[in-house]
This record gives sequence, structure tokens and C-alpha cells, in this order.
Amino acid sequence: MIDLNFFAYSATNDIGLLAFAISGAYKGINRKLDILGVIVLGFLTALGGGITRDVLAGKSPAAFLGYNDIGFTFAGIGSAVIMYLLIKKDISGNIIIKISDAAGLAAFTVTGAVVAHQSQFNIAGIVILSFITAVGGGLISDVLTNRIPMVLKEDFYATCSIIGSLWFYISINIGINQNCAVYTTFIVVLLVRVVAILLNWHLPKLKS
Amino acid sequence: MIDLNFFAYSATNDIGLLAFAISGAYKGINRKLDILGVIVLGFLTALGGGITRDVLAGKSPAAFLGYNDIGFTFAGIGSAVIMYLLIKKDISGNIIIKISDAAGLAAFTVTGAVVAHQSQFNIAGIVILSFITAVGGGLISDVLTNRIPMVLKEDFYATCSIIGSLWFYISINIGINQNCAVYTTFIVVLLVRVVAILLNWHLPKLKS
Amino acid sequence: MIDLNFFAYSATNDIGLLAFAISGAYKGINRKLDILGVIVLGFLTALGGGITRDVLAGKSPAAFLGYNDIGFTFAGIGSAVIMYLLIKKDISGNIIIKISDAAGLAAFTVTGAVVAHQSQFNIAGIVILSFITAVGGGLISDVLTNRIPMVLKEDFYATCSIIGSLWFYISINIGINQNCAVYTTFIVVLLVRVVAILLNWHLPKLKS
Repeated sequence: MIDLNFFAYSATNDIGLLAFAISGAYKGINRKLDILGVIVLGFLTALGGGITRDVLAGKSPAAFLGYNDIGFTFAGIGSAVIMYLLIKKDISGNIIIKISDAAGLAAFTVTGAVVAHQSQFNIAGIVILSFITAVGGGLISDVLTNRIPMVLKEDFYATCSIIGSLWFYISINIGINQNCAVYTTFIVVLLVRVVAILLNWHLPKLKS
Repeated sequence: MIDLNFFAYSATNDIGLLAFAISGAYKGINRKLDILGVIVLGFLTALGGGITRDVLAGKSPAAFLGYNDIGFTFAGIGSAVIMYLLIKKDISGNIIIKISDAAGLAAFTVTGAVVAHQSQFNIAGIVILSFITAVGGGLISDVLTNRIPMVLKEDFYATCSIIGSLWFYISINIGINQNCAVYTTFIVVLLVRVVAILLNWHLPKLKS
Repeated sequence: MIDLNFFAYSATNDIGLLAFAISGAYKGINRKLDILGVIVLGFLTALGGGITRDVLAGKSPAAFLGYNDIGFTFAGIGSAVIMYLLIKKDISGNIIIKISDAAGLAAFTVTGAVVAHQSQFNIAGIVILSFITAVGGGLISDVLTNRIPMVLKEDFYATCSIIGSLWFYISINIGINQNCAVYTTFIVVLLVRVVAILLNWHLPKLKS
């Protein structure tokens, strides 16, 4: 049995939540939403992927349950969004934000894969649930601000999550210890994403 | 135990459904959809928030269950949309429609809060579920007509729902009788919204 | 008891999945997404309707369960999308693709109606679930590529699904054998859609 709680509410997950909240809030500021809109986008970008993951797996959203640890998480997201409302600068290119975002991408990929595995989903379920957990919040905030989601158009971003979830599936099926599968998946996604940032990788675009 | 059925299918809820259906149908007419598109938008705007609420709470959508009372509801929504197709005027500024819409906002906020409370969700769950129940239908129809949702951009609208759900959470936790919490929440949302309409309140906008 | 598995994973369903995947991939190519975006749109257009159906019915998505038959399905969708990435021509007007798409529309309408019936949903649940199963994937891919969904604007497409699900509801309630209801619903949707293609039917548009 994978100790998901230990992992999911670990530091990396919370760092990712804050980075996602900031990126969501920025989209709202950029599109001239009002204060409520910016706060809603911040929370939805941070929590939307995990909520969708839990709904697809037939569970109550983890973000809606519990009262202790999760209070700090919400306070953190709220603080990040409100501080960002005061700054109003695009800090998404900042290397600290980018690395925090990569940590979130890795942590969310893992929780998606673990929930799918615990729900006995097949390889499609594992890849799709990891993908949605990791990039679902960003998809939702892009759609709400009337844009084609960035992850579908450019950058080497969601691909890191797909590589990680395929690695998770393979490692579980070749009999690697489950906790080991979790940690190596986290490392694979984080490493590939950091390399993609450093080397400025992009997927080829297509012309119709 | 809160008598949700009594409240949820009460007159205010149905008035809200009709007002939401009209606002959805208008978006469709305004964006030059065909007749089917206008009807679909009318129904989705009226029912989308409640369906999303039930899915998030792990329940079968209330709109899909039962055969008696709910038949009148659907007939009402359908009639509102079809009558509106014949009129084709923007009546969303009409004060009767605005008050009906405010009644719907209040009733939907309450059902979201009650379902979240019955699912033992935390404060985030209560606020988010109330928010989605109340404005989810409008969000869906804005997204489907390729617009940034109005509630994120302007007006003092979703904020009334958030104030109401926070009041619900507080009143339940300071030990107020549950039915009393339900009715005061309804009154809080309705009052704040009507005052916001009369005084033309808006949240501050942001510039990037 | 309707033998859904027999029908749902039959040849028509798989033909529909491939046609839907191709139409989704084309939207991605047309909007200049990268390779990942095109593949994601192909899979989401094919699987999105069925996944939404299962979530609304409180079930685990069928696409995420099972390992045998479903492997061929995914391999088929992937192959269709990848072959299409190599061709990059708009083949959506091709009569073979149009008929395959009509077969998918009919098969998906049936599975939506059957799942709704098995969940003891009312007539609204049957119509809405059939509608979402049949056109949900297309709605998702249109929203993700920042367009007003085609099915809301033009063509006589989703209407065929609605006619079929109403027929299903009527036939079940007048006591027709359930397997017979399934097959006649399939035939009704397919026939109406093929006639609509041949006679170039459109619903009337509206002007505001």
C-alpha cells in the first residue's frame, strides 16, 4: 500500500500548489478580471487538477475533506494569490517559480498515478489521470480566460507528466517496490522538466 | 437533519431555474446559435450548477432523478426558453428577471452549502460547492459561447454567494439550528445581491 | 438486462471512436497545436463523451477499466491520430468519415441511454446523458481550441442523438423488449443522421 497521504501533502505538493496558484492568478490579472476572478482562478488552477482526479476516480475531492493540514494549504494558496495581487508583476519566468512549478508538476503526476493505480485503472487511466491532475488546473484557467491551453500549444511540459506516468506504470508492472515507483516517478518528471527548461525544449508544431 | 427537498424544490429554486434558463438562452441567441444550441444553453445554464454540485459530492444528479415534481421544473425551463425564443429581446436588465435571478442565486447557494455540509466537507468544500452550484451554470454557458465568464470580470454577483456560504459555515459552527442557518443564508445572499443591484456595486478591476 | 458490453464495444462503437479521434486531431492540426496537443485532442474527442457519461452516472470510466479488448481500442485511436498527423489533410468531408462518424453518434447515443436507464434516470437524464455521450467529446475539443461548439451552431447533428434518446425512452416505456429498444435506437439515429447528410439539413439559425 502506497502511503499517499505522506506524499500528497508533503512539501513538494504544497510548493506546487503555490506555484500553480500564482500562475492562475497571473492569468486573471493579465485578462483584467476583477479581484474575485483573480482569486477564483488562483484557487481553481491550484485545486482543479486534484478535484478532477478525485471525481474521475469516484472519490470525494481531497481538497474538500479534513480540517487540519489542509487549512495551512488553503491559507498558503490564499496568501500567495493576495500577495500576488499586490505585486501584479509577471513572475512566471522567474527561475524559483519555474522550479516550484516543476515540483508541482512532478508531485501532481504522482498523486494522479497513485489514485489511478489504487482504483485499478489500466494504462490509459493512469496516463490520463496523471495528465489531468498535473495540468487540469491550468487547462481550466486557460479555458475560463478564453485561451487555447498553453500545454496543448507549446513548451515541453505535459509531456514530462506523460513520461512520468508511463514510467510509473512500467515500474509497478515489473515488480518494483511501490514506494520506490512513487519516488522515482517524482524524480523522472522533475528531472525531465528541469532539463526541458534549461535546454529550452519544445515539441514540433504542426501546420494544417 | 436539514429538509433539503422542501427547500430545494421550493418556489424560489424554480424561479431561479427559470431566470437562469432565460439568461442562458439569451447568450445563445446573442451568439447566433441555432435553435438546438439555444435550448441546450438554456437547460445547461439552469441545471449545470446543480449537476456539477452533485457530481462533486459523489451523488447522482438530482435533476436526473424523480418523475413528479421535477417534470414541472423541466416543463417550466423548456417553456421559458421557447417563449424567449419567440421574444428574442434582451430582458436580462428587467428588474423582475434580476430579482428572480437573485432568488436563484440565493436558493442555489443554499443547496450547495447543504449538500457540502451533508457530505462533511470542510470550509473550502462548502464555499466552492456553493459557488459552483450558484454560478456553475453561467460559467458553463459563458465557456460554451466562447466568453470569459461574466462573474469573473464584473458585477457584485458571485461574491454574494461566497458571503452567504461563509455565513452558513459560521452559523452551523456556532451552533445555530440548521433550518435557521438555511433560511438566514438564503436571506443574506438575496439581500446582499439586491443591495448590489440597487447601488450598482462592482468589485475593483485590476490592470496588469 | 441489456447486454451493454456486447453492444458498447462492438464494431460500430470502435468505428465511431476512430472517426471522433480523427475529427479531434484535425481540430488540433487546424489550430496549430503541437504534436502532444493533437494527440490529446484526438483521445479526448474520442473518449471525453464516454468518460463524462460514466462520471455523471457515478461509475468508474469504462475507458479506464479492463485490459484486453480496450487495448485494441486505444491502439486504434492512437494509430488513427498518428496516421492523421502524417496526412494532415482535412478529411472530415469524406463520405466514409462522415458515415463512420454517424455510426459513432448512433452507438454513443445508445450507450448513454442505456447507462442512464440502468441508473434509473428520468427522461431528462436519458436525453442529457445520451447527448453528452454522443457530442461531449466534440464539445470538449471545441472548447479547448477556443471555439463555439459546432453542434450548437449548425448542422443537424446532435438533434439526431436527441431524437434517438427520446425514441429509446418511449420504446422502453411502452414495453418493447430492451435489446430491441437498443437496436432500433441505433438505427433511428444512424438513419436520421445519414438522411440529414444527404439532404444537407440544418436547424434554423436565430438573430438577436
